Amino acid sequence: MSIRVAVAGASGYAGGELLRLLLSHPEVEIGALTAGGNAGSKLGQHHPNLLPLADRVLGETTAEQLRGHDVVFLALPHGHSAAIAAELGDETVVIDCGADHRLENSADWERWYGGEHPGTWPYGIPELPGARERLRKANRIAVPGCFPTVSTLAFAPALAAGLVAPEVVVVAVTGTSGAGRALKPHLLSAEVMGSASVYGVGGAHRHTPELVQNYSAAAGEPVSVSFTPVLAPMTRGILTTCSAPLRGGVTTDAARKVYLDAYQAEPFVHVLPEGQWPQTSSTLGANTVHLQLTVDPDANRLIVVGAEDNLTKGTAGGAVQCMNLALGLPETTGLPTTGVAP
Amino acid sequence: MSIRVAVAGASGYAGGELLRLLLSHPEVEIGALTAGGNAGSKLGQHHPNLLPLADRVLGETTAEQLRGHDVVFLALPHGHSAAIAAELGDETVVIDCGADHRLENSADWERWYGGEHPGTWPYGIPELPGARERLRKANRIAVPGCFPTVSTLAFAPALAAGLVAPEVVVVAVTGTSGAGRALKPHLLSAEVMGSASVYGVGGAHRHTPELVQNYSAAAGEPVSVSFTPVLAPMTRGILTTCSAPLRGGVTTDAARKVYLDAYQAEPFVHVLPEGQWPQTSSTLGANTVHLQLTVDPDANRLIVVGAEDNLTKGTAGGAVQCMNLALGLPETTGLPTTGVAP
Amino acid sequence: MSIRVAVAGASGYAGGELLRLLLSHPEVEIGALTAGGNAGSKLGQHHPNLLPLADRVLGETTAEQLRGHDVVFLALPHGHSAAIAAELGDETVVIDCGADHRLENSADWERWYGGEHPGTWPYGIPELPGARERLRKANRIAVPGCFPTVSTLAFAPALAAGLVAPEVVVVAVTGTSGAGRALKPHLLSAEVMGSASVYGVGGAHRHTPELVQNYSAAAGEPVSVSFTPVLAPMTRGILTTCSAPLRGGVTTDAARKVYLDAYQAEPFVHVLPEGQWPQTSSTLGANTVHLQLTVDPDANRLIVVGAEDNLTKGTAGGAVQCMNLALGLPETTGLPTTGVAP
Amino acid sequence: MSIRVAVAGASGYAGGELLRLLLSHPEVEIGALTAGGNAGSKLGQHHPNLLPLADRVLGETTAEQLRGHDVVFLALPHGHSAAIAAELGDETVVIDCGADHRLENSADWERWYGGEHPGTWPYGIPELPGARERLRKANRIAVPGCFPTVSTLAFAPALAAGLVAPEVVVVAVTGTSGAGRALKPHLLSAEVMGSASVYGVGGAHRHTPELVQNYSAAAGEPVSVSFTPVLAPMTRGILTTCSAPLRGGVTTDAARKVYLDAYQAEPFVHVLPEGQWPQTSSTLGANTVHLQLTVDPDANRLIVVGAEDNLTKGTAGGAVQCMNLALGLPETTGLPTTGVAP
Repeated sequence: MSIRVAVAGASGYAGGELLRLLLSHPEVEIGALTAGGNAGSKLGQHHPNLLPLADRVLGETTAEQLRGHDVVFLALPHGHSAAIAAELGDETVVIDCGADHRLENSADWERWYGGEHPGTWPYGIPELPGARERLRKANRIAVPGCFPTVSTLAFAPALAAGLVAPEVVVVAVTGTSGAGRALKPHLLSAEVMGSASVYGVGGAHRHTPELVQNYSAAAGEPVSVSFTPVLAPMTRGILTTCSAPLRGGVTTDAARKVYLDAYQAEPFVHVLPEGQWPQTSSTLGANTVHLQLTVDPDANRLIVVGAEDNLTKGTAGGAVQCMNLALGLPETTGLPTTGVAP
Repeated sequence: MSIRVAVAGASGYAGGELLRLLLSHPEVEIGALTAGGNAGSKLGQHHPNLLPLADRVLGETTAEQLRGHDVVFLALPHGHSAAIAAELGDETVVIDCGADHRLENSADWERWYGGEHPGTWPYGIPELPGARERLRKANRIAVPGCFPTVSTLAFAPALAAGLVAPEVVVVAVTGTSGAGRALKPHLLSAEVMGSASVYGVGGAHRHTPELVQNYSAAAGEPVSVSFTPVLAPMTRGILTTCSAPLRGGVTTDAARKVYLDAYQAEPFVHVLPEGQWPQTSSTLGANTVHLQLTVDPDANRLIVVGAEDNLTKGTAGGAVQCMNLALGLPETTGLPTTGVAP
Repeated sequence: MSIRVAVAGASGYAGGELLRLLLSHPEVEIGALTAGGNAGSKLGQHHPNLLPLADRVLGETTAEQLRGHDVVFLALPHGHSAAIAAELGDETVVIDCGADHRLENSADWERWYGGEHPGTWPYGIPELPGARERLRKANRIAVPGCFPTVSTLAFAPALAAGLVAPEVVVVAVTGTSGAGRALKPHLLSAEVMGSASVYGVGGAHRHTPELVQNYSAAAGEPVSVSFTPVLAPMTRGILTTCSAPLRGGVTTDAARKVYLDAYQAEPFVHVLPEGQWPQTSSTLGANTVHLQLTVDPDANRLIVVGAEDNLTKGTAGGAVQCMNLALGLPETTGLPTTGVAP
Repeated sequence: MSIRVAVAGASGYAGGELLRLLLSHPEVEIGALTAGGNAGSKLGQHHPNLLPLADRVLGETTAEQLRGHDVVFLALPHGHSAAIAAELGDETVVIDCGADHRLENSADWERWYGGEHPGTWPYGIPELPGARERLRKANRIAVPGCFPTVSTLAFAPALAAGLVAPEVVVVAVTGTSGAGRALKPHLLSAEVMGSASVYGVGGAHRHTPELVQNYSAAAGEPVSVSFTPVLAPMTRGILTTCSAPLRGGVTTDAARKVYLDAYQAEPFVHVLPEGQWPQTSSTLGANTVHLQLTVDPDANRLIVVGAEDNLTKGTAGGAVQCMNLALGLPETTGLPTTGVAP
């Protein structure tokens, strides 16, 4: 079997990680690679780590270029996916790593992104209840945001089990690759190294409505989310801390049991042994999420901490996992599970 | 005027930062420097940046060595300060950078540190109400912990003004110098660089009771605190995010006014211009705290973010500020206010 | 086919990287894992990234534990390999990641390491002339040092082709994982981050005689080597700059042709396209060396720059590559060739 | 006394460091601040660490804005200084942090920068023989490049004393602030962190002719220089390694004596105690250079290693030191000498 795959937005970080994973995927043949402003240049200029593809010339991101593949990954700025997908037939599996099709509520879309809502596609966190069935028959898939992936996996079980009140505080530390390859002053290395900073505070980050959507679905009731992203001096990795007030007399052991039950059969989500807390380096380059939790009896809160590589499980790895499902392949095909550490 | 100053624990990070600041303090003459295991070695081996003191030989940390100075700074492991201070007369100002005399409640001490409570000294955050008066006549001063310094300055005004309910969530990202020079595997550079991790989750960090103490004093009622410290790959700096549920219909503007009023006359605490959020690099090596805040109307919480250099305002700079007060010097003497950035 | 493999020194960085690679090697079954001071503990404590092996308990490093495997990797402090290898039969392939069997000259061993020379084993850089044949029939293999691997591959072709005089200057920047997991003050994260430093200057580093040996073998005459290692704030990666005075009127094109000829058939050594210079991130976690070169006509020198991951191609990956050869497997089996970047 | 100072290019890194130093200079009043593309914005947007100047609005960089100051610092892209200086009268001391007036040889200028040579100004390394006298009467000063500052101080004494042959190899590791605030992809934090890379190899870096000029002046004969700059993941700091073949039987002790003699009276250049090697963190934010040296008898070379902060002694601190000289102030006025470490 050989699946022909195209990547639109191949010169960016998400595109590069997709190609790194696809290069070692045993069933995939890499087809068209396209870009926006970088069209016409060689891939090797943008991703010197991907030597086997160094001489590939990037095409323009058009339906023409992308047609005729079994799978098309879109890693584009928001607002561009719907038009391209509309021109690709139903026989093509389109997997959107961007934000366009994640939100279910049009009003949310308009408030957070502006413009007309491009519509909602099956949401690509296979570990959520019912998601695998939907993804197995999907030919359009919305890959979740990097913060929502790990933060949803970290706190949805607590909400689903009713362990906590529906008021979640999420503070998540991220490496800077999550911001993409944009040439912005605050992403310059001299600004980032040796410094921690915040952005999008007070609900201003666009991943907030996605968290609200996921948490509310898990809880079966509206959940409020206070989300604060912190930029740390590292390239990859998200460490999320999620907490909420306890309901009733939940103990750490009881909460732990909920999580072990939720994830015991999952190949990519791991509740760490007691006493061991997540660190992002353990997930570097791997399609995994590491979790640990505790009850704070004094503050009367449940605290769950999760780690992932924002580019792997948080974007490209999650996307390949969805592709595997949509094509009927074993879900773990071609996906690394041990991080490159130290 | 020449104040003769001794530093006990001079080979550690707090000791080194004290000496860096004291070297450029116009009224100070540096006297005895002592250490534990490093006694007998030269200071230059431990702090190659402090060339003017490179050939100073470290003495043993004994009352004998420390006697006869106007000011003695103690930067010792916890449990050692009380005995030494008892042997130094009342004419000596003793400033303890360790934890021994910060907590007011003996039961807290026993729970968090074990052993007999060494007692409570005047608490060294001059910016708190009434603190300056106490510190001006003190000859024993307890320097606060690095996390409590910035987190107290960040959230005490909101609690004092009744803007929020007494349930605070603090997630604070720190550089690794806060852990001191201990030879522990998780502090090795290969473990830290490129990775974020958590420790002391769920109320297990010893700075938690200090935060509870400070916040409760500000609020005038018991405050619960959920405190999660995050270790980030940087040497210095703490970025704290503090939040709590709003009381009544507080707006960002109203909250901002509370903070501007609280800190307008303070030389070291700065509420940043609207739209500008703290980053730790702006405080590197400076005795400053930078603050910004917002109301999240969807989550119904006030979020305050603060940045400091954990070794400067968070430890040694705060200690020198207290020394200035206790000696009747202008409070800002010898203390830098602009960070070394980028 | 299932090859049973043991790793001695499994709790260190080289041991961890060996296990990361072996976990995805299709022909290998992981047998005994042993350690020195960490014997009795679980592997997961030391390598939280290696979840599939988290519950494995480390045994003592003894011949008893290691016997009965097809391959034994030794990642031990120097001076310990020979005695253990002597107790393992000739039917076991022993691959020593330590220094004990790299040097051919007993006088060099005594000068640089002290004590009796443990002897010389076939040297594990397969890309050197004649090396593959020797390694294919070897049951004892000495894995080269991390600096010598990339620096030899970078400059041996120039010496072999007589492009340069036999006086090489090597300045190589390394991440700190190359120093292993030793609890030394200068390896603490607070010391390393934000700082570059040197060590072992003036021929004091133990990799110097190995470089002299390799370069002299390539040149067919004695070569002098000035080697300066620089410690940079990163976990993995070596960037080596090698230069020597030109012989005759060598041009960049002529030198480039020598390198392309030397490495065109090599799966792990890549001469980058013209204009593209190596960066260590492109090799992170991969068993590759990236090279680029130029002639400086004003200084009349050839400069070759090489990048590798010190733990992968520089240690564990090179060791697995040798294992593949010794067992008659395809040389590239189980070895990643694209770095995890950015 | 109050010296009125203007800074052109105030929004860049050199401009920011000038202002940080000038803010704590006791004799200086900060006048006009100007910029290119950032004219019209507030300084606080660009340098959040410089709170006392946060509300200053940046003017256009014109002679009009800069006229009427005692001292004007120019931190501009190359090619812009001469025209502006020509419009400022001789009564204004103009200190150019850019490259325009460093080179003595017009042919060098044309080869390396193109266009007409803007002319040569007194060269701002006061520690070189005869330099102080020239700088004391200068009203135009060319601040040296960051690499040449530390590399010249590191190797000029050896060349002047005839310890080595005139063939110097310089490999210097630098933080990324040396590249300025340019929005270039290779300076993005995600590219830089965790990676070392090279650029300008083989004599392609514009600091090469400046090194040749300085070394040749010291040696009294033409010196060839092979210069390789390495980019390391840190914000500030240059660590330079300089070496050349020994002449005659020079010992480490003899070479050390030459350096101690050369720098014993210098307030900013320090030959470290024997056995202690430079690290850039010891110079962070300080106007110092730390040096150490050794003879490698096997390679028959002298190796000198130097560390500086590229923005302080390497640019802005060196510029203020020159200003002090030109104005007849004590040379060390307002300049820190202890680095912010760890």
